[in-house]
Amino acid sequence: MPAQRCLHLGAFMRPVSIHTGAWRYPGAWPDANFSFPRLKHLIQRLEAGKFDAFFMADHLALLNMPIEALRRSHTVTSFDPLTLLPALAAVTDRIGLIATASTTYNDPYHVARKFASLDHISNGRAGWNVVTTANPDAALNFGQDEHMAHGERYKRAREFYDVVTGLWDSFADDAFIRDAESGIFWDPSRMHVLNHEGPELKVRGPLNVARPVQGWPLIVQAGASEAGRQLAAETAEMVFAAGGPIADARAFYADVKGRAAAFGRNPDHIKILPGALVVVGTTVEEAREKRALLDSLVHYESAIGSLSIALGVDARAFDPDAPLPDIPDTEASKSGRERAIALARREKLTVRQLAQRLGGYGGAAIVGTPATIADEMQEWLETRACDGFNVMFPYVPGGLEDFVTQVVPELQRRGIFRTEYEGTTLREHLGLPRPENRFFRLAARAAE
Amino acid sequence: MPAQRCLHLGAFMRPVSIHTGAWRYPGAWPDANFSFPRLKHLIQRLEAGKFDAFFMADHLALLNMPIEALRRSHTVTSFDPLTLLPALAAVTDRIGLIATASTTYNDPYHVARKFASLDHISNGRAGWNVVTTANPDAALNFGQDEHMAHGERYKRAREFYDVVTGLWDSFADDAFIRDAESGIFWDPSRMHVLNHEGPELKVRGPLNVARPVQGWPLIVQAGASEAGRQLAAETAEMVFAAGGPIADARAFYADVKGRAAAFGRNPDHIKILPGALVVVGTTVEEAREKRALLDSLVHYESAIGSLSIALGVDARAFDPDAPLPDIPDTEASKSGRERAIALARREKLTVRQLAQRLGGYGGAAIVGTPATIADEMQEWLETRACDGFNVMFPYVPGGLEDFVTQVVPELQRRGIFRTEYEGTTLREHLGLPRPENRFFRLAARAAE
Repeated sequence: MPAQRCLHLGAFMRPVSIHTGAWRYPGAWPDANFSFPRLKHLIQRLEAGKFDAFFMADHLALLNMPIEALRRSHTVTSFDPLTLLPALAAVTDRIGLIATASTTYNDPYHVARKFASLDHISNGRAGWNVVTTANPDAALNFGQDEHMAHGERYKRAREFYDVVTGLWDSFADDAFIRDAESGIFWDPSRMHVLNHEGPELKVRGPLNVARPVQGWPLIVQAGASEAGRQLAAETAEMVFAAGGPIADARAFYADVKGRAAAFGRNPDHIKILPGALVVVGTTVEEAREKRALLDSLVHYESAIGSLSIALGVDARAFDPDAPLPDIPDTEASKSGRERAIALARREKLTVRQLAQRLGGYGGAAIVGTPATIADEMQEWLETRACDGFNVMFPYVPGGLEDFVTQVVPELQRRGIFRTEYEGTTLREHLGLPRPENRFFRLAARAAE
Repeated sequence: MPAQRCLHLGAFMRPVSIHTGAWRYPGAWPDANFSFPRLKHLIQRLEAGKFDAFFMADHLALLNMPIEALRRSHTVTSFDPLTLLPALAAVTDRIGLIATASTTYNDPYHVARKFASLDHISNGRAGWNVVTTANPDAALNFGQDEHMAHGERYKRAREFYDVVTGLWDSFADDAFIRDAESGIFWDPSRMHVLNHEGPELKVRGPLNVARPVQGWPLIVQAGASEAGRQLAAETAEMVFAAGGPIADARAFYADVKGRAAAFGRNPDHIKILPGALVVVGTTVEEAREKRALLDSLVHYESAIGSLSIALGVDARAFDPDAPLPDIPDTEASKSGRERAIALARREKLTVRQLAQRLGGYGGAAIVGTPATIADEMQEWLETRACDGFNVMFPYVPGGLEDFVTQVVPELQRRGIFRTEYEGTTLREHLGLPRPENRFFRLAARAAE
């Protein structure tokens, strides 16, 4: 019988809370995104909670939202992930460090080198969240007039991945001899010059960093589109999935694992971790009250815009403190409209409460006691809706502390989460193999 | 009467020793360039020695040297400076952190953001060594067939500097209010959108990081060409100068300070720190023996190439163990040839010793006891040949330890080096002002 499958937990930390009201919550640190001492405290608490990884998203421009919402946002700026994570590597020992880097607005040589350096500095804990950048404003910060089209971005991303992984394989693992006696520092026959010339990219190589500790840093992706799923199935080792109803999550899980198998990959080597905002209370009622308080901190003027977009009508005309009126069919996405209406009816929300819910964080949430949260996570794990979660906290430090001190021990008691790190690298935490060097593996075989 | 001028000391640490024989020296760490624990130890010792800054050069390709020399080089690879320095920031409190970044092979938005992030993470200790990249092989790693011409590179560098410093000024220092009560996180009227459109670069902005702790990270430059001197005089706050005879250094010092004054700058706000390899012994004789041992570790096959280039003749024809024969005039640089010949005559070096000297490190060196080294440094300081030094160590950790435990106390005893950090930022260590925000200073004045 196979060993009990265990959850993998990432902490999605940029912003430190996804919830737009988080910075106003009683006891919250409003400056957490901006403060290295705060971020250091948070990652050390996550490491005490044995999280697989600290996961840092990114943006290459101000968020493209109306200024009324933007000036109320604690996520308007943040540190560059590839500058922050090395600093956090130096104050931790085991937790993985996943940084987002765009394939649209970077050179592959820089990306390969920075992640290789981070992997060495952290002794094998680096992960690269491969994104193509959704915010079109980024183009204007990188000398371009227009954002590259979706299909083009994914085509470039696929080639970019080949170049970066090829550069990581520039040196065999045994290339560096450092023989003081003979004076030979390294063996040029154990170096491969990539000489890549493709439709989008031209990169000679070799990389000027030794092969990463993990062979390759972990490859992470979050794309949910058809092109995104194909790229993930072919290349990703962790997928940051949408939450959503469990039935949808199971279908997504089966779809992506099936696509990976069709590429000849072992489906166990692609871990699927949906995002979930987790709010912990001593009773379910208390947890719901916490969430309601959090939502109430979202400014109505900003929130009503989110609701109008979801419904496809101008919701500012509605009475904020009355139930949601009947909404006619519109041009807006049917699923988004129906989800919003169903949510309002199910939880008996006023227009204001619904707007603040969607404006705060409209994605998947798990709200309850440590036991009910563990029940829900266990059901997702055991029915193959996921291999774990990318947890988002309602605010910091309190919301994170609740998870680490209350939910983690409950998961450990049930035997579905580690009580100690078994390995030292992020790949080891996730049960993933260390990739062989594509050039030197082939050379060795040819010589046999 | 003005206070005694004091030395400023940078440690030039990529490679950890500039000397190509360093990794073979008895007691040396051959893997120091590759090992975060080693680098962490070294920077903590430099901080104990009250150094102004840890200075990390960079290369964007393998060094362009013959493979016979390259496979004996401990500098063939190294960590990306902007990935290493944040990690070192997290394990230090005061020492400055200067990273090299190329204006030819980077986007200004990334450079501005990474240095701003490093400045926040280190609480005001970041410096940017602005380079245009000399190694033409870098072009091939960045999708280009040819390295940009020298003049073009400097033109782009000047504009790049304007963009990066403009992006650092995107937010007024008081832009972030974080008023939980009103829900206003920041004030859009305290944000400036750069909208730069120049001949080389087009960048909208704003940067998505708050203004750096230092206003702007320190600007460092090392160019010695006419274009390099002009760029330094106009923009640099620290110049990494060549060493060379003291008379030349005085002329360079006067020239660059004069050019800065011509740009309307305060000449005290541009600090000139020549590089110097410093070898410490208990007697002058012992220091010279240490250096001779170090030179003897340079492989003759690699070294003789350096000598041939310097002399402009094929030096492999000479008897390695005989004195240097008479050398006819050649097409090679006259000053390089004459320096090599004069060195051989002055120190009575054999062909092999001369080759190994030039192949090991041909630049300026200070070799002696703590007292003679301090004498020399003091003379340079007092006769305005420099404002300090970028020190290079013969090997690590021993050569660095010799400097910190023997030379630093001698300089402190003479009152020409700090015994404690007076401030917390790199600018404060160097006595440099915090730049005003160009956009919000003007706005404030206009409102007066």
